[in-house]
Amino acid sequence: MIVSLVLTLRAERPVVLPAYLGRASHAAFLRLVDQADAALAERLHAPDARRPFTCSPLMGGRRRGRSLEVGPEDALYVRYTGLDGAVSALLARWAEEPPSHLELEGATLVVEGATVDPAAHPWAGCETYEDLAARHLLPSGSPSARLELEFASPTTFRSGGRALPVPLPDRVFGSLVEKWNSFSPVAVSEEVRRFAEECLAISRYRLATRVVPGKGDSVLIGFVGWCRYVALNRDRYWLSLLQLLTDYAFYAGVGYQTTVGMGQVRRRPEAGR
Amino acid sequence: MIVSLVLTLRAERPVVLPAYLGRASHAAFLRLVDQADAALAERLHAPDARRPFTCSPLMGGRRRGRSLEVGPEDALYVRYTGLDGAVSALLARWAEEPPSHLELEGATLVVEGATVDPAAHPWAGCETYEDLAARHLLPSGSPSARLELEFASPTTFRSGGRALPVPLPDRVFGSLVEKWNSFSPVAVSEEVRRFAEECLAISRYRLATRVVPGKGDSVLIGFVGWCRYVALNRDRYWLSLLQLLTDYAFYAGVGYQTTVGMGQVRRRPEAGR
Repeated sequence: MIVSLVLTLRAERPVVLPAYLGRASHAAFLRLVDQADAALAERLHAPDARRPFTCSPLMGGRRRGRSLEVGPEDALYVRYTGLDGAVSALLARWAEEPPSHLELEGATLVVEGATVDPAAHPWAGCETYEDLAARHLLPSGSPSARLELEFASPTTFRSGGRALPVPLPDRVFGSLVEKWNSFSPVAVSEEVRRFAEECLAISRYRLATRVVPGKGDSVLIGFVGWCRYVALNRDRYWLSLLQLLTDYAFYAGVGYQTTVGMGQVRRRPEAGR
Repeated sequence: MIVSLVLTLRAERPVVLPAYLGRASHAAFLRLVDQADAALAERLHAPDARRPFTCSPLMGGRRRGRSLEVGPEDALYVRYTGLDGAVSALLARWAEEPPSHLELEGATLVVEGATVDPAAHPWAGCETYEDLAARHLLPSGSPSARLELEFASPTTFRSGGRALPVPLPDRVFGSLVEKWNSFSPVAVSEEVRRFAEECLAISRYRLATRVVPGKGDSVLIGFVGWCRYVALNRDRYWLSLLQLLTDYAFYAGVGYQTTVGMGQVRRRPEAGR
């Protein structure tokens, strides 16, 4: 099962927080997991493992330079996704019995609601790997050769020890297929990365970098915005796989540091443009 | 000698033109060359040669979708650069004795001024390869590890038969060093492309694609905006070369189709940000 839990939050009084709360959101998530299932929390802490979850930064409020101002009037939320059964089951449970509050950088935010229902919040969701795969890989029609991603939180890739804050097709879909094959019971061909590199062109975008605080005094550079890709080869299998991974990006995130708020991504609807 | 000639233009009455006049500007340039020096014009038409000039689209006016509205009140200009002695000498002559008018897509624009003096217009310039090389390669201090380019007209690269509308360091500086070595009497190492690929990181940008009409019904996708690069290796020679090529970009343009308006680029000043 894969789940995207949205916790809607409210500040009881006005408070000024750091602008980017990816690490704080991650810490709050691990505290909640630890309270619910200490063995799972320990597993999620394990070094060098591919993490079966992502955490968004705190979303909403008013950005002022390096600060985020939030008050009782602001619609705030954080979003946690689970990519394996254990994390997803816990997130689904929290949708039923949400935690009462979330602590972010010393500020206590009241949890006003919790949902995994996409009808209740556009960033919530719940499905299975099997359903997702079946939806894309089984139909006999022609999958669209066009796809478009919205990069809602700063996204970046690592390449030869450097950050590469550009959504090159092979990086985006390479990142996604690796996660898919780490967690899905339905394996797909990792050659999709090569198809993306050779046959997927960047056709439109509007992107800008954002600075994200890293460990200590370091910073990470990510990009936000949107990017449209067009396949120059209409092979049905590879296109289906790209469309599958585009939907999976909603849960898996894209690129580097998706557990601490980076790489929050979703398919961008094509309608209305 | 390398020269950037700016022709300031005026429309005698309001007229609606296509939004992107790169090909029209190129055609007007070749007509002017043909009138002045038929043998040179023939050489500039030769297929498959690296062209010793660039042409800007018509700059100024008000864009409305696929149209450009211009009137007598608009400050308009086109810009032609010469990368070898013959073209540069002709452009320098036009700065003294400008053509009386320029025909673009059937519209006649009056040439109100012509200059190669950067004090007279920020996109004008005139220098020699030797001076440019000496300015960067001879000083003994440390060249800056940071450089920033403004992509003023849609810019793109070709890669494996596809357009790649992203300013990856190796594409930008590979494009520039190839042109430099085609036209400069002072050759530099083409390995600078590899240095750019391995040691130059994209650190900040704000970029968006623009659609440019190609031949027939085709379109080309370029990007406009700005991009900052930071070298992760402080080697003096390679940094000097990157700084040299950054200044050369003003004349040479960057990437694909610089003779028909694409890839108009200049160093972005760092002050004030």
